[in-house]
Amino acid sequence: NCLWLSTLLMLLLHFCLVIPKLTTDAYDLLPAPGGEELTRGFLQEVVDILLGYISKSSQRSSKVLDFHHPHQLKEGLECFSLDLPDQPETLEQILVDCRDTLKYGVRTGHPRFLNQLSSGLDVVGVAGEWLTSTANTNMFTYEVSPVFVLMEECLLKKMQSILGWSDDVGDGIFCPGGTISNLYSILVARYHFYPEVKTRGMGVLPQLALFTSEQSHYSVKKSAAVLGMGSENVFMVKCDESGKMIPAELESSIVTAKEKALVPFYVNATAGTTVYGAFDPLNAIADICQRYTLWMHVDAAWGGGLLMSDRHKMKLQGIERACSVTWNPHKMMGVPLQCSAILGLLQECNDFGAEYLFQTDKNYDVSYDTGDKSIQCGRHVDVFKLWLMWKAKGSEGFGSQVNKCLENAEYLYDQLLVVTGNLSFDHTPEHSNVCFWYIPPSLRGQPPGPDRDARLHQVAPRIKGRMMEKGSVMIGYQPLGDKVNFFRCVFSNPATQQEDIDFLLDEITRLGDI
Amino acid sequence: NCLWLSTLLMLLLHFCLVIPKLTTDAYDLLPAPGGEELTRGFLQEVVDILLGYISKSSQRSSKVLDFHHPHQLKEGLECFSLDLPDQPETLEQILVDCRDTLKYGVRTGHPRFLNQLSSGLDVVGVAGEWLTSTANTNMFTYEVSPVFVLMEECLLKKMQSILGWSDDVGDGIFCPGGTISNLYSILVARYHFYPEVKTRGMGVLPQLALFTSEQSHYSVKKSAAVLGMGSENVFMVKCDESGKMIPAELESSIVTAKEKALVPFYVNATAGTTVYGAFDPLNAIADICQRYTLWMHVDAAWGGGLLMSDRHKMKLQGIERACSVTWNPHKMMGVPLQCSAILGLLQECNDFGAEYLFQTDKNYDVSYDTGDKSIQCGRHVDVFKLWLMWKAKGSEGFGSQVNKCLENAEYLYDQLLVVTGNLSFDHTPEHSNVCFWYIPPSLRGQPPGPDRDARLHQVAPRIKGRMMEKGSVMIGYQPLGDKVNFFRCVFSNPATQQEDIDFLLDEITRLGDI
Repeated sequence: NCLWLSTLLMLLLHFCLVIPKLTTDAYDLLPAPGGEELTRGFLQEVVDILLGYISKSSQRSSKVLDFHHPHQLKEGLECFSLDLPDQPETLEQILVDCRDTLKYGVRTGHPRFLNQLSSGLDVVGVAGEWLTSTANTNMFTYEVSPVFVLMEECLLKKMQSILGWSDDVGDGIFCPGGTISNLYSILVARYHFYPEVKTRGMGVLPQLALFTSEQSHYSVKKSAAVLGMGSENVFMVKCDESGKMIPAELESSIVTAKEKALVPFYVNATAGTTVYGAFDPLNAIADICQRYTLWMHVDAAWGGGLLMSDRHKMKLQGIERACSVTWNPHKMMGVPLQCSAILGLLQECNDFGAEYLFQTDKNYDVSYDTGDKSIQCGRHVDVFKLWLMWKAKGSEGFGSQVNKCLENAEYLYDQLLVVTGNLSFDHTPEHSNVCFWYIPPSLRGQPPGPDRDARLHQVAPRIKGRMMEKGSVMIGYQPLGDKVNFFRCVFSNPATQQEDIDFLLDEITRLGDI
Repeated sequence: NCLWLSTLLMLLLHFCLVIPKLTTDAYDLLPAPGGEELTRGFLQEVVDILLGYISKSSQRSSKVLDFHHPHQLKEGLECFSLDLPDQPETLEQILVDCRDTLKYGVRTGHPRFLNQLSSGLDVVGVAGEWLTSTANTNMFTYEVSPVFVLMEECLLKKMQSILGWSDDVGDGIFCPGGTISNLYSILVARYHFYPEVKTRGMGVLPQLALFTSEQSHYSVKKSAAVLGMGSENVFMVKCDESGKMIPAELESSIVTAKEKALVPFYVNATAGTTVYGAFDPLNAIADICQRYTLWMHVDAAWGGGLLMSDRHKMKLQGIERACSVTWNPHKMMGVPLQCSAILGLLQECNDFGAEYLFQTDKNYDVSYDTGDKSIQCGRHVDVFKLWLMWKAKGSEGFGSQVNKCLENAEYLYDQLLVVTGNLSFDHTPEHSNVCFWYIPPSLRGQPPGPDRDARLHQVAPRIKGRMMEKGSVMIGYQPLGDKVNFFRCVFSNPATQQEDIDFLLDEITRLGDI
């Protein structure tokens, strides 16, 4: 009886206190006088929506996405309008907008979202982001970010020690993604060899040459273009069958560059390529860099996470010899986007002593004002979520998480071996990438050749399209070199279990045989 | 009686269900089987901490900050340790860590935080960020960010129409901060005049010259260095007394550059300088750019917000003639960090056709895959909070907010005029920046000169240090040109009222007269 009454009471309270208030608008929220109650009510409603989203995303019975074409979303669906009004909407409508935004989005935390190197939804990481956005501050000075600046220092030191660097080597910075991290590495290398470039520009330098493998991330080429070096001066070094840079090819590229009167100065080695997940032979590359006095960068954006695992870290042997390293915790370590580190010396390279921002006569140790080592001025706080997750998991927890993802890759690979008549694989996984073709019944009898290739090329996009329209699972595909479109499955989502892999294979068969 | 019982029941439920569970660790949270209840309980506890923080931040009785030196925080305060463990902490400890992180941070939403161009804590903006981090996706393709990609397009179009550009001009992108936005503008300008730079590098170009005012943001110089143009090829054009670029000086700098055999190509005009908040004369600069066929960029990172106000937008007259514009909604529009737009054509400039990411054979209109116009690959979702705030305030709401901040600046300025015997002002405010010296009693009788200047230079840092230690208010200071350290007060925080300005002036007097 009392329980029944109390439930009724709570419902009444809910309707009296919260709902009618939400017909008011944002001007009644804090900092409006007396806005506290409404603010709490509104944010609590938002949180209820988010909690519902999080738990639904973890259920296999939910769709991964509810696909609509751009024109459908733009025309407006069930009162969901993207248009920006002149007059305010009610808070009630704002809540509807929040629900709709999530409804038409993609559940990247769903156990069957296997589309991207960044996936999953770490609950502690999300809590970290919620706090970060509530603290709403900027990394540029200790003055406005005392705690976050120290957390960054602490994380960078830890990551450096995991790389095998001594305490006094390098600093580093968290920056907006792996491409910017790789750009930093080239910038720092250029400054190291030619400090005059900062004031005088590329005009006073010889024509520089950069080296990276043909399967490396496109950011090396893009960064070279941005930095004024020209993408054609980036030598794309040949890889072996498994996607690793061939050291002898690197050496002959260096010789070729010199013959063309270019000056080699920078080599990017990849630890975990985007498509195959291959690891370049770091020690052999380091030997060459040493011989020719070149800057060795390791792009471990994707593979860096394996350093957390005792079982897999040997795949990055030699990384301790790198001059700089890119490592994205938002990939294999499951940290919410965005969280990317560039490790290596930065300070002098970007220092412009903007005195109006970085005064030297402050009341604290201004060496903690990090703004001047960044090419950004304001910088988002990307470190707290990682710091909090590290507290919550410990180094060992990250290790187990990585192991689990690689076990999933092994399982998928083994399944592909078993059902080889049906699905044709392409490459043994070293990271959590598994690449394979699906050969539909109509192609199974056909002999290899351009005709079959042309048809096979259309299979993955067709199946992917059907997956998206059905919303049952998401996985990537791409061509590579002379290989026509094939699927790339990647595991970085701790929610994914073997049953999801079984489902994926069945689903591909189902959708592929239509 | 029943109310009493129901309260008791709720308390019991709270203790039975939530608290004891939190002695478990992060592995029991989702995606662990049966982890839903604990996940909801944990996140709700986090939210309770955040709601408490938000309401406390809006109270004038709270401190703006609880200052500690770096070494104090690093040594650990009351069990708050920054160290990263090997083993997981309990969820209970994670909550303590969250509380401590906020405790030792700076309340940038406090009505008396006047330290930075970005301040305030917009409740709808915070809700937007909470949702963004829960959605945890990436802007690079429509495939994984259908809604956010369309919201970006919608916002960019709206902002372009507010600039006065027609619908078919330009695109743009949201990127990590004003410095990167300004870097984009130079990159695009260079590509516009010398498309071969992308493949061949700066070596095949003449030595380029850039122009910006001596009071502009340091990002122009920094970007020129990054892009390989050399900081010494950036001409710092003289400003008048009020901080505006002098058009005749721009023209004579262009002539000087040409005489030195440099090739002028880019002019940055500032709409809202960092220190004085000055607006360069955009039409006069546009005339010069037209005459010499130069790219005209407007850095309206700080001043762009004034375009939302009918009362103040005329200060940016001529911006419609710019080739590209930087506009940071995270400054004057009060959007949580980070939210910065570069408006202008980007696509061709950064396009590298990375086919493994941006396949052209997808099942939807791939022109919505924005990744290839960015120099980033992965890109954080910075648009949702702005979109949601626009819904909640309407364009008019942003306008009133801007007006309010500028009224605060006028009020402070007027107060300084009144008490001119005590506080000495330096410059008439055009934006919400108010710059002034505080002359302590000991200096009031002293004649102007190097002696007095040397002593006056130390006043602002000393008062600022005391403010921070006391935690009562935060305001910036800096020297500029031949002017010794002076205070810069900026208003972008909608929570700030006249009473806070009165408090600031009293507090400066109190702390300055010690």
